[in-house]
Amino acid sequence: MIPDKYHDLLESTALAHVSTLGPSGEPQSNPVWFGWDGTHIRFSQTTKRQKYRNLQRDPRVAISIVDPNDPYRYLEIRGNVIAIEDDSSLAFINSMAKKYLGQEIYPWHIPGDKRVVVVVASEHTSQMG
Amino acid sequence: MIPDKYHDLLESTALAHVSTLGPSGEPQSNPVWFGWDGTHIRFSQTTKRQKYRNLQRDPRVAISIVDPNDPYRYLEIRGNVIAIEDDSSLAFINSMAKKYLGQEIYPWHIPGDKRVVVVVASEHTSQMG
Repeated sequence: MIPDKYHDLLESTALAHVSTLGPSGEPQSNPVWFGWDGTHIRFSQTTKRQKYRNLQRDPRVAISIVDPNDPYRYLEIRGNVIAIEDDSSLAFINSMAKKYLGQEIYPWHIPGDKRVVVVVASEHTSQMG
Repeated sequence: MIPDKYHDLLESTALAHVSTLGPSGEPQSNPVWFGWDGTHIRFSQTTKRQKYRNLQRDPRVAISIVDPNDPYRYLEIRGNVIAIEDDSSLAFINSMAKKYLGQEIYPWHIPGDKRVVVVVASEHTSQMG
């Protein structure tokens, strides 16, 4: 689904700007760390966040990622959240800390925060460069 | 509307990830050059693009901008397109080339493309850092 030519972006430490739909169907967007398993995009979320509530209401997302080495090269992924997985072990957020910070343990975990992994399947892509 | 503390991001050469709503109300997102006049966010568009059609159908947008010098600092602006201005003189797109490329003339203009300026008013912001 995602052109091979852009797989390097999915393996990079670029941020993913994830857009979701708010309560009135309005777009909301913010940057997140993300992972890619060769098929799906994954990002961490706490269950207190607006984005989590948005995704429970409407699973449609758009994700845009710019090449950190070339601002004129980007990938947009439009798709759906197909699963929200428990991350109470913090295994996933720790893997993100490893990817983005080079640290084994995510340093900003707040005790009591319930962490989940949002799993996105691509339905359509657009790209430049 | 936009906290003073984040005005530097609006004056930076960061890219703005602009999310609009597609024909089925789904989010779409891509990075754009943008300008700020102290009140409104402006970005260029050609009238052939999906984003232009989206904005004519539904003026709601979300814009997320990450600090180029600090990936943990960002600003999200949610708002509405309040005007779409003619740019057939290319004055605005040339000003964007000046800002982002240091060039007087936008080098990638395609003769026949109709350029407009999309003007966004902020309704709500979220931020980190």
